[in-house]
Amino acid sequence: MSAEDILNEIKQYVIKNSPGNALITDVQFEGPEVVIYAKNPEIFSNSFVKELARIFRKRIAIRPDPSVLMEPEIAKDKILKIVPEDAEITNCIFDANTGEVIIESKKPGLVIGKDGSTLEEIKKAIKWAPKPVRTPPISSETIKAIRATMYRERTDVKEILRRIGRRIHRDVKLREDCWIRMSFLGGAREVGRTCNYLQTPESRILIDCGINVAIDGDKAFPHFDAPEFSIEEIDAVVITHAHLDHCGFVPGLFRYGYDGPVYCSKPTRDLMTLLQKDYLDIAEKEGKVMPYSSKDIKKCVKHTIPIDYGVTTDIAPAIKLTMHNAGHILGSAIAHCHIGDGLYNVAYTGDIKFEASRLLEPAVCQFPRLETIIIESTYGGYDDVLPDRAETEKEFLNVVAETIKRKGKVIIPVFGIGRAQELMLVLEEGYNQGIFNAPVYLDGMIWEATAIHTAYPEYLSKNIRNRIFHEGDNPFLSEVFRKVKNTNNRRNIIDSNEPCIILTTSGMLSGGPSVEYFKSLAEDEKNAIVFVGYQAEGTLGRKIQRGWKEIPIMNRNGKSKAVKVNLSVHTLEGFSGHSDRKQLIKYLRKLKPMPERILTVHGEASKCVDLASTAYKLFKKETRAPMNLDAIRMK
Amino acid sequence: MSAEDILNEIKQYVIKNSPGNALITDVQFEGPEVVIYAKNPEIFSNSFVKELARIFRKRIAIRPDPSVLMEPEIAKDKILKIVPEDAEITNCIFDANTGEVIIESKKPGLVIGKDGSTLEEIKKAIKWAPKPVRTPPISSETIKAIRATMYRERTDVKEILRRIGRRIHRDVKLREDCWIRMSFLGGAREVGRTCNYLQTPESRILIDCGINVAIDGDKAFPHFDAPEFSIEEIDAVVITHAHLDHCGFVPGLFRYGYDGPVYCSKPTRDLMTLLQKDYLDIAEKEGKVMPYSSKDIKKCVKHTIPIDYGVTTDIAPAIKLTMHNAGHILGSAIAHCHIGDGLYNVAYTGDIKFEASRLLEPAVCQFPRLETIIIESTYGGYDDVLPDRAETEKEFLNVVAETIKRKGKVIIPVFGIGRAQELMLVLEEGYNQGIFNAPVYLDGMIWEATAIHTAYPEYLSKNIRNRIFHEGDNPFLSEVFRKVKNTNNRRNIIDSNEPCIILTTSGMLSGGPSVEYFKSLAEDEKNAIVFVGYQAEGTLGRKIQRGWKEIPIMNRNGKSKAVKVNLSVHTLEGFSGHSDRKQLIKYLRKLKPMPERILTVHGEASKCVDLASTAYKLFKKETRAPMNLDAIRMK
Ligand SMILES: [Zn+2]
Ligand SMILES: [Zn+2]
Ligand SMILES: [Zn+2]
Ligand SMILES: [Zn+2]
Ligand SMILES: [Zn+2]
Repeated sequence: MSAEDILNEIKQYVIKNSPGNALITDVQFEGPEVVIYAKNPEIFSNSFVKELARIFRKRIAIRPDPSVLMEPEIAKDKILKIVPEDAEITNCIFDANTGEVIIESKKPGLVIGKDGSTLEEIKKAIKWAPKPVRTPPISSETIKAIRATMYRERTDVKEILRRIGRRIHRDVKLREDCWIRMSFLGGAREVGRTCNYLQTPESRILIDCGINVAIDGDKAFPHFDAPEFSIEEIDAVVITHAHLDHCGFVPGLFRYGYDGPVYCSKPTRDLMTLLQKDYLDIAEKEGKVMPYSSKDIKKCVKHTIPIDYGVTTDIAPAIKLTMHNAGHILGSAIAHCHIGDGLYNVAYTGDIKFEASRLLEPAVCQFPRLETIIIESTYGGYDDVLPDRAETEKEFLNVVAETIKRKGKVIIPVFGIGRAQELMLVLEEGYNQGIFNAPVYLDGMIWEATAIHTAYPEYLSKNIRNRIFHEGDNPFLSEVFRKVKNTNNRRNIIDSNEPCIILTTSGMLSGGPSVEYFKSLAEDEKNAIVFVGYQAEGTLGRKIQRGWKEIPIMNRNGKSKAVKVNLSVHTLEGFSGHSDRKQLIKYLRKLKPMPERILTVHGEASKCVDLASTAYKLFKKETRAPMNLDAIRMK
Repeated sequence: MSAEDILNEIKQYVIKNSPGNALITDVQFEGPEVVIYAKNPEIFSNSFVKELARIFRKRIAIRPDPSVLMEPEIAKDKILKIVPEDAEITNCIFDANTGEVIIESKKPGLVIGKDGSTLEEIKKAIKWAPKPVRTPPISSETIKAIRATMYRERTDVKEILRRIGRRIHRDVKLREDCWIRMSFLGGAREVGRTCNYLQTPESRILIDCGINVAIDGDKAFPHFDAPEFSIEEIDAVVITHAHLDHCGFVPGLFRYGYDGPVYCSKPTRDLMTLLQKDYLDIAEKEGKVMPYSSKDIKKCVKHTIPIDYGVTTDIAPAIKLTMHNAGHILGSAIAHCHIGDGLYNVAYTGDIKFEASRLLEPAVCQFPRLETIIIESTYGGYDDVLPDRAETEKEFLNVVAETIKRKGKVIIPVFGIGRAQELMLVLEEGYNQGIFNAPVYLDGMIWEATAIHTAYPEYLSKNIRNRIFHEGDNPFLSEVFRKVKNTNNRRNIIDSNEPCIILTTSGMLSGGPSVEYFKSLAEDEKNAIVFVGYQAEGTLGRKIQRGWKEIPIMNRNGKSKAVKVNLSVHTLEGFSGHSDRKQLIKYLRKLKPMPERILTVHGEASKCVDLASTAYKLFKKETRAPMNLDAIRMK
């Protein structure tokens, strides 16, 4: 049945089974959803929409016909008039594509009103569907820019969605002798440039499309020279999380002609955009040739279709995608693909943390069905057992407390997303408990990344959510945190005698403010530097970690200057966002159902092989550590 | 360097280093060879040509400029005048593409003359290069037809060769991060539709391209729906041997747009053409839709570049092919590919017999280098040990002798190529030793296949070659063999009381004369039927083998008639052209050098898996039984 036929059938059904005064004006595929436009959309009950979804096995959305929507400017005035001033509305964001208006306010309860009465009133008055949310406590430039793009280019976005919708629901005859296979275009037996290419006779899906930021040349990008790869044939791109080794090349796909959807969680969309822009900025400064420009990042944003954890979405003929929490960074997901009506299920973990962290819940390990799991192996080697988490926190706070006590400064070089926020939560608690008394400065990308975290409290751990929603106590807003606003501000922090903690990018001192802090603070033995993440060979971070006593560093004027290293150097391995070997094995053990095949990726060759071999011994299932350019038949 | 540049360089070198009176007229790529045309080609010494090949690392051929070649008709008269009549010249075959004339005679020694003096005289007189050969004792319609095609379409063939030559020597920049992989498009964990697809960044090679004649529909053909397969990109097709499960689809490639070379041995070219035509004839009679027509078979012949065992040939940028005897059927080969200057070597056995048979030498097991072996697994299962060969022959001759003694007839249904000729050699010896005294009738395709065998004595076992060349004693010409010329002839054989042996196709009684013989001879208990090959489920052969006492057989008029089975039924498994389990393991053990990876294919799933698992236990190398549509990275 063609897309047109399906739409007609749904339209006929809805017209026949809904009250006549709903006044249906259009039925369209928009991305993976079927959208029914009506002049009186409020007439449809939730149960009717559910029934519709059940019958047609599609995601259904009902939206007001654009003609009935009040002009945004006038609508905003109307909202401000209806809602009591005490609600402190800070922003109304009109989404022309969904017919929704997000109403940000300090007290969203007052926007809802008793039993939703205020909402009802707003809806009747302006026809836009009001979505009350709490005003994000820190405003994010990234989110603002994305929203602005989506609004400004709403006509284009709608057209993109409709084109994608028709492609997803295109008429294909499913073959009897269906086959399913996965090619590994990058990230197999290595870390960096992760790119998995799922193929069936009818569809091609790219799951993650990263770059290796640590190297130059062709090997930094996935194997697009694989003979089966054809950019014109890709139905969908799925992104598990925002780290560049998983999403760094996505704008490049658009540069080279891709024009389809990108599926990921909303936080991933925002963080990914932030990181891609940052990557571009740095590369430009270094004069590197980049595979894309900021224009392509914008194109990527416009083609992104955010999906929530647990919602099953058609992404290609006979392929359904469900994203599940991966516990690794904000919005990180395990991608579960259900292929060919119940035929085959494959889950790819992306990067996972199978342990509750302060920031996030542990990775999901239960699926409705599962035949193949593709699991990361960063710490899959025989010796990769990480120190206990609680111990590590204690040790960390000890170093901080001692340094502060002797009036020193603590430099903590971190990657902006994930570890930074996790450490903020540890520091916030330590400060509240009186373990130290000094400000924590946030420099580099950390502030903006934190802003994005505060915009998606529903993605954070239960504990943090509880504090934010029920106790009105947002740890990220603690007085202990201070934003470093500019170079002057940074200079003052360095020069003052005040003991303090500095969380700053980049995590390996390969550039960014962390190098500035180190240069100025290294010679004073009162100070300390704490490494909480991996330091790659050849980086400044690695040299310091190894105990070099004097390090030549290039000055702004291009002259090399020797910096004496007198500050105390600490390395703490227990804060990783990745599962260690024990957790990876525990994850496989807890998987429900147990899959028939286990593939290990995303780790040095020996670690992928170790994990595969252990998994084979433990579970007696088919296990393999594929190589890049291997294509594995799954069914 | 472009193809043009290479040619120019060679031309300059030759002009500079050869006597001026050679009169070079042209230098061209023709297929994998560099051909130097000269008005006086005889001036070049063999050592000069070898030196040239060494320097430029190309196969070099020196040929007379077409302008100096005498008209074939006149040249033939000249040859007949020069060579003494006693030589009994039967045919002169002028090959316009090579400037050679094959002189077939009963006494080739007289064509050569003392110290080659007669040859020299001929050469001087006609300028064609004379190649004296013994007149094949049985003339082959297939070979005649192929020669006629090649002569008639010589202009077209030359153009094809030049196009292929330029493609092989095209200008490609070999990448530093070279990768090599093999996709299995058919014949993995199954028998039938064998198709291996070798890929490097620069090249695509198809090694074998078979069909499964036992089934209908898409599953009879290789997985051309594999995403990496692209018919336009194929550089070369390599065929290991003439069985349809290895070459049955090749004309189909030309039907669907392939226009490149097919590399195989000369006997394989001829036998393959015979079998493809036969397959087409049968399919047409059965009203099947075929993926090609006889026009495509002719196209395939014109694109075939025969290569001898042991000769290394450039078949694509950075891919060199060497064929080695596989011991399976006449002309069968192991394909050894040497990829990227010394970088990687993979050998694919095709079907192998690792035991001397009467007809052929055992498979070659030594290679200059070897990293991966892809080995057949037809009898790779734990129980697949075949009876001893000498025992089997004895048993076979016993059955024959006893049946003849009781004045019965022996039906031996065989596949036309390979087993038939092997049994002929056994029967010829038995007859000579007086074990039985009765004629052996050859029906169906066997006679023609035997004719092709006699045309290529150099491909037969040392023993047979000795008999033919040194003792003038060709076993295929024994008086015991009689050709069944037509239906009348067949009727007479059936009706006469004379005891006899009938070797006849098809081997599984799935059609052809074997069914006729069986219907008429089954009810007489004096007769016998001997199965020497595999009988597939559902075939008439299988039913007889299983001991059915009454079998309904369709008559020509479409009515079913019950045939009583009274003749004695025998099955002999020891004549297989495949290595049994012991021989396969012995082959791996004897391999030189031992490869680092062993892949098992061409067998039921359990047999491929059994063999892989045994090989792993024995050799501790990476072993796998890939699936169809798996792509395995080799380097
Ligand atoms: Zn990650
Ligand atoms: Zn990663
Ligand atoms: Zn677009
Ligand atoms: Zn064969
Ligand atoms: Zn075969």
